[in-house]
Amino acid sequence: MNHLWKEIRQNPILWLLALVPVTFAAQKVSPESHTLLFLLAVLTIIPLATLLSHATESVSAKTGDAVGGLLNATLGNLTELIIALAALRLGQFTLVKASVAGAIVANTLFLLGASFLLGGLKYHVQDYNRVNARLQTSLLFLATVAMIIPSAVASGGSEMAPDFMQKLSVGLSVVLIVAYGLGLVFSLKSHRELFGSIEEAVSDEAPWPLNVALVTLAGVTVFVALVSEIFVESVQEAAVTFGMTPAFVGFIVVALVGGAAEMASAFSGARKNRLDLSVGIGLGSAAQIALFVAPVLVLLSYVIGPAPMDLQFWPGAVIMVLIATMTAIIVTNGGRSTWFVGVLMLMVYLILAMTLYLLPPGGQ
Amino acid sequence: MNHLWKEIRQNPILWLLALVPVTFAAQKVSPESHTLLFLLAVLTIIPLATLLSHATESVSAKTGDAVGGLLNATLGNLTELIIALAALRLGQFTLVKASVAGAIVANTLFLLGASFLLGGLKYHVQDYNRVNARLQTSLLFLATVAMIIPSAVASGGSEMAPDFMQKLSVGLSVVLIVAYGLGLVFSLKSHRELFGSIEEAVSDEAPWPLNVALVTLAGVTVFVALVSEIFVESVQEAAVTFGMTPAFVGFIVVALVGGAAEMASAFSGARKNRLDLSVGIGLGSAAQIALFVAPVLVLLSYVIGPAPMDLQFWPGAVIMVLIATMTAIIVTNGGRSTWFVGVLMLMVYLILAMTLYLLPPGGQ
Amino acid sequence: MNHLWKEIRQNPILWLLALVPVTFAAQKVSPESHTLLFLLAVLTIIPLATLLSHATESVSAKTGDAVGGLLNATLGNLTELIIALAALRLGQFTLVKASVAGAIVANTLFLLGASFLLGGLKYHVQDYNRVNARLQTSLLFLATVAMIIPSAVASGGSEMAPDFMQKLSVGLSVVLIVAYGLGLVFSLKSHRELFGSIEEAVSDEAPWPLNVALVTLAGVTVFVALVSEIFVESVQEAAVTFGMTPAFVGFIVVALVGGAAEMASAFSGARKNRLDLSVGIGLGSAAQIALFVAPVLVLLSYVIGPAPMDLQFWPGAVIMVLIATMTAIIVTNGGRSTWFVGVLMLMVYLILAMTLYLLPPGGQ
Repeated sequence: MNHLWKEIRQNPILWLLALVPVTFAAQKVSPESHTLLFLLAVLTIIPLATLLSHATESVSAKTGDAVGGLLNATLGNLTELIIALAALRLGQFTLVKASVAGAIVANTLFLLGASFLLGGLKYHVQDYNRVNARLQTSLLFLATVAMIIPSAVASGGSEMAPDFMQKLSVGLSVVLIVAYGLGLVFSLKSHRELFGSIEEAVSDEAPWPLNVALVTLAGVTVFVALVSEIFVESVQEAAVTFGMTPAFVGFIVVALVGGAAEMASAFSGARKNRLDLSVGIGLGSAAQIALFVAPVLVLLSYVIGPAPMDLQFWPGAVIMVLIATMTAIIVTNGGRSTWFVGVLMLMVYLILAMTLYLLPPGGQ
Repeated sequence: MNHLWKEIRQNPILWLLALVPVTFAAQKVSPESHTLLFLLAVLTIIPLATLLSHATESVSAKTGDAVGGLLNATLGNLTELIIALAALRLGQFTLVKASVAGAIVANTLFLLGASFLLGGLKYHVQDYNRVNARLQTSLLFLATVAMIIPSAVASGGSEMAPDFMQKLSVGLSVVLIVAYGLGLVFSLKSHRELFGSIEEAVSDEAPWPLNVALVTLAGVTVFVALVSEIFVESVQEAAVTFGMTPAFVGFIVVALVGGAAEMASAFSGARKNRLDLSVGIGLGSAAQIALFVAPVLVLLSYVIGPAPMDLQFWPGAVIMVLIATMTAIIVTNGGRSTWFVGVLMLMVYLILAMTLYLLPPGGQ
Repeated sequence: MNHLWKEIRQNPILWLLALVPVTFAAQKVSPESHTLLFLLAVLTIIPLATLLSHATESVSAKTGDAVGGLLNATLGNLTELIIALAALRLGQFTLVKASVAGAIVANTLFLLGASFLLGGLKYHVQDYNRVNARLQTSLLFLATVAMIIPSAVASGGSEMAPDFMQKLSVGLSVVLIVAYGLGLVFSLKSHRELFGSIEEAVSDEAPWPLNVALVTLAGVTVFVALVSEIFVESVQEAAVTFGMTPAFVGFIVVALVGGAAEMASAFSGARKNRLDLSVGIGLGSAAQIALFVAPVLVLLSYVIGPAPMDLQFWPGAVIMVLIATMTAIIVTNGGRSTWFVGVLMLMVYLILAMTLYLLPPGGQ
């Protein structure tokens, strides 16, 4: 643990780790101070995310950017899975679906757009492996089809038998999970040689030893999950204090704070000209949520939920996911990035966020 | 006919040809045994499709894969045209439209996806001429626009004057036929040099002489048409026995069995690393149905139908065709295929098929 | 002005310039003769457009095709801005929006499609700089998202608070203008080396001196604006005489005549194998209208309008703009053009135009 300790002493941001016990204490003492808990949680997540980012980079230095990105995406989504499971157990399906759709859109547009922008401000033109980008955007497209088709085919949507939607959701969930699994076989096994990084990273600092990195990864992930739960519990009430609509909170704020750890890694990758790491985290995480987390939640709802959850989303959410997917397909087609590509993606995200921010409470 | 005879003796599948007279006899003797006729028709179509596939390959060995694919697509669609004409004469417009849309989707997603998968299981990476793929998907996109725009522009769709839809359908039909004709001029004449095959096929067996192949093609096509008619007549009633919904039968079962001949050729091409043949058959057939068969049916309905047919499709069908077209555009953009590309396309098809299978009868 | 005079003597089309004073006189004397004024205006716009085209080419011979295209697009849209401002002052928001959407579609599909066709009839294959095409189509995609999202997210559109739509429209307008400005910084400054022309033009005629060209540009633009206003005033009434629907006039006729000057330049560029000029004019003009002219009109409506205008378009218009954008994205992806690509784009435009032409008056 010497490496970890040295890192903490050198990096002032990590001193915020001292807030971790404070946050847990505050929750015990005063569980109703939502605004305080909200601010503490946000401040605590930042150093944890930084630590997670550093550990991931150390691991991916050994495994390559594709595996490193997958690892990072999986750990990042573990948090979201934990949060969603809590909501699922309480039967809050709308919250679960909003956080799933919001995370897909945030990872695709915000995380990737900001990575392109941050990288582009430092490097004139950046190239990345477009094979991986294509695989992930194709998977996202498949998930989008699975979101669109139930409501589209059943044109008279309102009188649909709920039985139909339940059976269909289970079937679609199995299809998506199988597709995701085959995608892993394809990218990590049968055609792994296509998924190498474009730019060989030259690490400027010595990475941690593998065991330190892995233990840090596991431990910090647990803390992130615990703090995230405090965050989710306090955010809705705190949002009212700040004058935000529930749609904006569920779709934008939760997704951005919940994805802080992944963003820290992705942005750091982009600034080091390792855009393959950023693409792997952003699109990989979005695809994983769409093709693995969401379907697993549907299937688990039969075991742990008060009632089964289906895969039918609010039409506005479907359109936002569709727009995010189409943007990613159009933008990553060439495997080349500049700052303006990042601006474009962020602008699309800004349009979605602005619309949700202004949406009157009943409009959703 | 010596070649043909030799082929039949060597290939056990072709021994099923003995069922052809049995099927015709059964229809004469017991036209109400729908389930028996259904099974006989399916078993009879298999050897006929195999024969058709072999004849097509012999012809395309002389003409090149692009022309061979077009020839195969045209003969395959001849069957569908014959069936659709019968339905048109009876005024069964819903059946005609379902079979048209179902054939477009099946050729684009199932035939091509299965070709990519079968080819990819044998070859690590396969390249094909993306110029032809782009031409066909662009034509499909044009046809999709023609399907979308009437109902989209007329936002108050239900109160639309039927007169408007009739005139528009005739106009759109002429536009599509002209575009298809110009596409043939482009690919077969003015820019034919762009449409050559990527991989030069090395035939492992001596092809039939051209006249044997052509006579076989013509003769077998007639038999396929006759058996297909028995199949279509029996399928709806047999489907009830097997517990399938009418939407599933019209869209999926009819399209898959009706396209068996083309599929046999396309799959065989993919296994021989002649993916240009598969792409030419799959996308070429879909484009031909969308831009030639469907418009011709609209125009012919003024001559032979009890009433004129329009080009307005059930919204679910329009969305399925749109999804199939977008999938083809995204997937064939690079001109390169692996097994996973095939899996993705088949998964999209599976999602559509599953939705239709579960759709309650009134939901369409 | 010697160059200008010499040009006029040599080119018989320019003799129609004699009609300019006739048109203004006719408007003074008989402002109610709509059909006469309509015909005079169309005949007058042709030589003015020719002159504008020649002046633009002289300027772009000095500045390069990218800047030349931008200059041409801006001057062409100046006309449309002037006309729209007049309509805005009168509170005719439907006319303003129809002309904005119509101009986007006409520039994307008709101007570019006809350029590809005209160029392709002379040259077998033409290449152009696809970086510029991608930038412009990405900007168009962003604008399309801004058009789609308000009505999409607010699924219960009709009961939407008008207050929400007003605030959102102002926010979206600012986002679009900022994106357009950053796009100019990107293409003209930070990454200008990516936007050079593919084919170096070999001018067959000596260009005018820069000062003559610029003075001609400015002067002719003013005349075009004045004549356009006469055209717009007379077109609706004249259209009834010719049996056209208002939707067709607002969307198609106004856009085609209003864009005559840009078309003359774009077609001339295509015939001289300077397709980068055509792409720059067509897509550049469409992007400018969508991301600059339309948002500026929204913001100006707070200053000069009788009431604020929002960015919400008739659903049919949104779909047409979406189709135009998707067509441009699909078609310009490869940076290569043939006559058939032009045919395809024109066919899509023809389908839209035909639908609007046949649409019963109440159907919009």
